[in-house]
Amino acid sequence: MAADSVHSTYPPKLSPAQEQFLVSTIKDWTIEHGLTVRPPVTFVSQEAVSKGVLATNAPVTLFPSPFPKACFEEARAAQKVYNELYARITMDEKWLGEVIEELIDVDDFVAELWKVHLAVQKQGYVQDLSLGLFRSDYMPHTLSGSQTSSLKQVEFNTISSSFGGLSSRVAALHSELLTSPPGHSLSYPAHPLFDGRVPPENTAVETLSAGLAAAHQAYGPSKSTPPLPLCILFVVQEGERNIFDQLALSTRLSSFHKISVFRLITSEILDRTSIAENNPLRPLIYNPPHAENSPFEVTTVYLRSFYAPTDYKSDRDWSARLQLELSAAIKCPTVLNQLSGCKKIQQVLADPNRPDHLSRFVPTEETQEQLRRTFAPQYDLSSNSRGRELALNPERAALHVLKPQREGGGNNIYKDAIPAFLRSMPESDWKGWVLMELIQPPTEASNVVLRSDGEVVSGNVVGELGIFGTILWKSNGEILHNEEGGWLMRTKGKESNEGGVAAGFSSLDSVILY
Amino acid sequence: MAADSVHSTYPPKLSPAQEQFLVSTIKDWTIEHGLTVRPPVTFVSQEAVSKGVLATNAPVTLFPSPFPKACFEEARAAQKVYNELYARITMDEKWLGEVIEELIDVDDFVAELWKVHLAVQKQGYVQDLSLGLFRSDYMPHTLSGSQTSSLKQVEFNTISSSFGGLSSRVAALHSELLTSPPGHSLSYPAHPLFDGRVPPENTAVETLSAGLAAAHQAYGPSKSTPPLPLCILFVVQEGERNIFDQLALSTRLSSFHKISVFRLITSEILDRTSIAENNPLRPLIYNPPHAENSPFEVTTVYLRSFYAPTDYKSDRDWSARLQLELSAAIKCPTVLNQLSGCKKIQQVLADPNRPDHLSRFVPTEETQEQLRRTFAPQYDLSSNSRGRELALNPERAALHVLKPQREGGGNNIYKDAIPAFLRSMPESDWKGWVLMELIQPPTEASNVVLRSDGEVVSGNVVGELGIFGTILWKSNGEILHNEEGGWLMRTKGKESNEGGVAAGFSSLDSVILY
Repeated sequence: MAADSVHSTYPPKLSPAQEQFLVSTIKDWTIEHGLTVRPPVTFVSQEAVSKGVLATNAPVTLFPSPFPKACFEEARAAQKVYNELYARITMDEKWLGEVIEELIDVDDFVAELWKVHLAVQKQGYVQDLSLGLFRSDYMPHTLSGSQTSSLKQVEFNTISSSFGGLSSRVAALHSELLTSPPGHSLSYPAHPLFDGRVPPENTAVETLSAGLAAAHQAYGPSKSTPPLPLCILFVVQEGERNIFDQLALSTRLSSFHKISVFRLITSEILDRTSIAENNPLRPLIYNPPHAENSPFEVTTVYLRSFYAPTDYKSDRDWSARLQLELSAAIKCPTVLNQLSGCKKIQQVLADPNRPDHLSRFVPTEETQEQLRRTFAPQYDLSSNSRGRELALNPERAALHVLKPQREGGGNNIYKDAIPAFLRSMPESDWKGWVLMELIQPPTEASNVVLRSDGEVVSGNVVGELGIFGTILWKSNGEILHNEEGGWLMRTKGKESNEGGVAAGFSSLDSVILY
Repeated sequence: MAADSVHSTYPPKLSPAQEQFLVSTIKDWTIEHGLTVRPPVTFVSQEAVSKGVLATNAPVTLFPSPFPKACFEEARAAQKVYNELYARITMDEKWLGEVIEELIDVDDFVAELWKVHLAVQKQGYVQDLSLGLFRSDYMPHTLSGSQTSSLKQVEFNTISSSFGGLSSRVAALHSELLTSPPGHSLSYPAHPLFDGRVPPENTAVETLSAGLAAAHQAYGPSKSTPPLPLCILFVVQEGERNIFDQLALSTRLSSFHKISVFRLITSEILDRTSIAENNPLRPLIYNPPHAENSPFEVTTVYLRSFYAPTDYKSDRDWSARLQLELSAAIKCPTVLNQLSGCKKIQQVLADPNRPDHLSRFVPTEETQEQLRRTFAPQYDLSSNSRGRELALNPERAALHVLKPQREGGGNNIYKDAIPAFLRSMPESDWKGWVLMELIQPPTEASNVVLRSDGEVVSGNVVGELGIFGTILWKSNGEILHNEEGGWLMRTKGKESNEGGVAAGFSSLDSVILY
């Protein structure tokens, strides 16, 4: 089926009574099943929010979005290769260091992270295991009139890859709506795409938790004298609104894997954790505030914070990150693994005009080609480069997006706006930017979204598919665990992707494969 | 263990860090697991509430409450006998009618319900099956200094017996807190009562849903021509804040029993349901607003509304009730079964100075005695009666509570206040009241409650244990299904039970048996 024809009749029109039924069913289902977020202060008063008890539905689409089956399967098939690619980049400190050092004077955040690595290196790393919980994000590149789409990677996430927990629940919500009431399927109006179809199984929670459990297991016995009980530590942001996504993993770890999990906000790391003095193995000790005399030894630090510059409010936060990195706990991720997720790395790998690097990390030509097919061309802007040529030519620029390397450093610049934007800054700053060929998702895709404040918005959308994967490796190159499983469909109002006013919406979705 | 000594050291004291941990864990757990209610307008603005998306935790105790094991088992053991008692009272229209007719001129609500019965009787009942989802509520009567408690019934509910859904989740919450982190149990401070104990299994959702499913099954094939698909209809109040309790049952019915369930608010019954004309079997047809051309035939009407006078806002609501009652749908409950739950019926059964009625309904002396042991003495206030004597004597009145028969008609009058209260009204109104010996729960019981607005309140409490049961019977006396299963512990701040200012709290709880 051509993407255009799929989207032109989708989603089916809703009568007011049908919309009312769907919206109220979803409002109730989300709360019943924990498909929730804490409400923003824009919706509920600061006073009510401060009580910490209110919740509302995560923003979700009323309908699952059609997605090409071949692209979905291609993305899944590539995940374990991607896992290994990023593990091997992380192990290759020399290669990684050369790319990162180029960024140090244009990206303070990268520079600070690199300093943490150097400080740990000085004392010596005591943990040779690393854990990655990754998510590779894609769009189906769909040229107008074409019968098929090709899968293109938008970005690869090596830290705090989120929405595994909630995404599984959205798939369950849409599956239930597609098949209810039992035997009759009347919740949605009839549509050919719905005939017998439900979203594919989504094992994100099981997969991500199993990755953390594998690290916990691989850590081995306590390194403390006397030995301490072991735990996994989730390092989180204060006032996290997306907490229920994270709890899906910790609940699975404690109920299924029988592993102790604690949550710790970044500002309390130095108060609550310590590295045992005089123990060259440097076990990381966690003291729960509610059980002062029951210290635990941390096998695995799972970061759901520390991924953005804003997570480091002072030097104390950098000291906290350093303490974690120095310790014997397995980090998910290490500083080096976090750095491997820089946009610059993705550009270096995907630059069609630069020497090939993929063969350094990916074993066979076949698997290299498997990844290369998912790359959208990306360029740096160095003098006389192809990237600079494309970016300054208005006609060619129109097919591209300019992305800042600097984390949290601002928004993307789109199409015609690129040449003037570049000319407004000194050329010496250009190396802080990456030029990427625009991926063209289906133009007619649309959906209806229930926002967290109860408003219902419909319109043209762009969907991004994320595939989750986990990998546990030793610095000597040995890979102990490499799994793929679970996915995320995130759907955004089209305006917000065009560099226009951010009047759009971003919501959790699922897929119907066609 | 004597009740006094159990309660004197319970619950264990919490340090501020321990309380903070427990409270924040419960705030998150409740939302993650749907142990939730819609927030009241006293906490969140009307505007935010009107969006229908916000939720907050149901009010819950931080700790499970100690409850005598023997009393818990006695209550469970009596449930199937109670189920049958109330089924047989409902079948005995003559006996029931005699008691109800005494109330007609003091209780408008009872009078209106009786009129519905008479109207249906005139046309003839077409459905000889009735379903009861009951809850029998108890307190452990605990005399000071006594080593044991005896189980006493507070009331028996024959309509809209609620909190089965949420109660199961509270038991799960407390069980998880008692055993977390896995293998260490550090969420609570240590206490002898916790050693290896968790709340007993709570199968309320499974039991109540299985009762509804049994009725659906027993209804048989469609009575319509041509036959229609079958469904269960939940009749509910508009703006129900306790909706997640109800959804636990409908979710189980659709996901496990594969039965179609629809929710319908009382004001829409006449718009959305009809009795097929010219069909003497009177099947009840439901037209879903979101699927206009897909009518369903209702096998079972489950009332979570229509239990209080305030649920009938106009004659139209009474017509709606009549339509349901006239139809071939199995009612849970029928008007007669609802009336069997009057306080007056309980008084007649439990009056030690009146002729015995129990033997009329309960087969053996042994089972009669089993029930009688759970009765607190109850009296009417007719002239020269024992009840009147006790109520007017200040010293004896101090051991009693005066309960209005009239549903929704005001509060209970306690102890010394009874004689003066009675003297302030004409004697002709006294038959609207029932005098009941006060049940004396353990005086030192205390607990800590997390309210729905996030406030934490602690103090002396009174707990009420409810046992759920379901029964499906034929008007000819045949009993098709009689089950017991699941329980509710509801814990109230003591002030609210003493006739004082209602500054207390009422919350969902679970039990630790001792």
